[in-house]
Amino acid sequence: MKFANLKIDSTAVVCLVDTDAGTYWPVTDLVPGFSGDMVQLVQEYPNLKSKLAAKGEGKPLNGATVLAPITQPRRNIFCVGKNYHEHAAEFSKSGFDSSAKEGELAPDFPVVFTKPASTVIGPGDAIPSHPEVTSQLDYEAEFAVVIGKAGRGIKKADAFDHIFGYTIVNDFTARDLQKKHRQWFIGKSLDGFCPMGPYLVTNDEVDAQNLDIKCWVNGELRQNSNTSLLIFDIPTIIETLSAGMTLQPGDVIATGTPAGVGIGFNPPKWLKTGDTIKIEVQGLGVLENAVG
Amino acid sequence: MKFANLKIDSTAVVCLVDTDAGTYWPVTDLVPGFSGDMVQLVQEYPNLKSKLAAKGEGKPLNGATVLAPITQPRRNIFCVGKNYHEHAAEFSKSGFDSSAKEGELAPDFPVVFTKPASTVIGPGDAIPSHPEVTSQLDYEAEFAVVIGKAGRGIKKADAFDHIFGYTIVNDFTARDLQKKHRQWFIGKSLDGFCPMGPYLVTNDEVDAQNLDIKCWVNGELRQNSNTSLLIFDIPTIIETLSAGMTLQPGDVIATGTPAGVGIGFNPPKWLKTGDTIKIEVQGLGVLENAVG
Repeated sequence: MKFANLKIDSTAVVCLVDTDAGTYWPVTDLVPGFSGDMVQLVQEYPNLKSKLAAKGEGKPLNGATVLAPITQPRRNIFCVGKNYHEHAAEFSKSGFDSSAKEGELAPDFPVVFTKPASTVIGPGDAIPSHPEVTSQLDYEAEFAVVIGKAGRGIKKADAFDHIFGYTIVNDFTARDLQKKHRQWFIGKSLDGFCPMGPYLVTNDEVDAQNLDIKCWVNGELRQNSNTSLLIFDIPTIIETLSAGMTLQPGDVIATGTPAGVGIGFNPPKWLKTGDTIKIEVQGLGVLENAVG
Repeated sequence: MKFANLKIDSTAVVCLVDTDAGTYWPVTDLVPGFSGDMVQLVQEYPNLKSKLAAKGEGKPLNGATVLAPITQPRRNIFCVGKNYHEHAAEFSKSGFDSSAKEGELAPDFPVVFTKPASTVIGPGDAIPSHPEVTSQLDYEAEFAVVIGKAGRGIKKADAFDHIFGYTIVNDFTARDLQKKHRQWFIGKSLDGFCPMGPYLVTNDEVDAQNLDIKCWVNGELRQNSNTSLLIFDIPTIIETLSAGMTLQPGDVIATGTPAGVGIGFNPPKWLKTGDTIKIEVQGLGVLENAVG
């Protein structure tokens, strides 16, 4: 199944969508009494699942405003850094990673930081450029996992049982701030720095460990990889994060970006106002935003 | 004013407290209709302030169970790292800071990371030792700021206008995980790793920039400093954090720990089950927890 947050009469409405047919059904029409947001849908999914079937023709998706699938994450978005070999190498070489060891090409263990929920914006929303604090804007196309079932000490073999589904995230970054403040949080946390969407696609719909991920800037293909190339795969990420911290339904984990970000070029290619960043992940749709 | 979350009939109740008299008043008794938690009190404080005066004798604080003042922060706790000179030096020298530059004694700019809200526990609660994932438990006594008024681009001169008050935080850390995973988040994020309390003390009650901060482990004085010795002072921290990210009422910012943590010793002094960590900040009370 695919879900989307659609803006209907100025309100975010959680909807079941059929992207092939181009139609949608508000969840509240399928499950009378449901009035929650996407995180509540995720929490209640085991009970609601049997009722979540398309009913009737559906309404036309064309023209609807698609918001981020989770507009209000309950806590910061977890992000894995340097999780594709070629990107880990380009980042280490760029001089922008203050935590890189001399000559290091890839980390020995997952590197995790967070972005506050206040960074989340939807497909098509302008990404604030914050010219007063940064002049080195960069994009990071990422495949993101959304947790469905809470758990601590989750073993790799059980990891997929705890996943609700997947979406796309642009882990937007102010490279100057990321470098200046050493820990990456500040450079990753500016308002509007996490475009997300368009859909939240359930676990059973895609083969999460073998999905093409591509990113274009102003139509030029910059990133082109596959989730099978993650250094730390999805089960490893979930085992690592949940080892001492209980994962919760609705948690979003961005799994890392492949090679081809702006700092991968020499000189770096910074984004400027008006540039468009389009990210496609196989089976998850397209997330496109322009720098505002 | 001082506020506390007291556990009354198994429920967290926001209370006005008079620690000198040893009495408390549930806020709902002073402001009929108020049923919010501490973050809601912080949000509504400008309107509620005039009604928040002790009324009658109050109930005896002695014997009441004090919870963390903010049991459910709305988003991750912001933490400033390496923010006292002697601690910055001890941490750099310890070899546990994977982001330290060769020979660096103190950072040039604030270093910020986060802890998820799920780390928060109250005074007296046992700190989970997580023996399955760490064997290097360490304490960090910290003075914490709670934001009252939202803002982005807050200038130093206006910083205190955005502060609601202060509390104490123990930025508990698994040093092995902090080092292993490079970015500090994982080593700081284990369930129960943020003892907080006992009170939330309003801005006007203390001189935040000149408060003694002390920490004892099993009765031995380990940390002994003053908030006047912060490398990046409170206005600088707020200006830095809010430069591109809107601060929100109820945000908690732990300002950093002084010298004397476990890794400051050679060999390091790791905590073990049963050890007690007592933190006192002048005017804010005492936060004591044992390792469980």
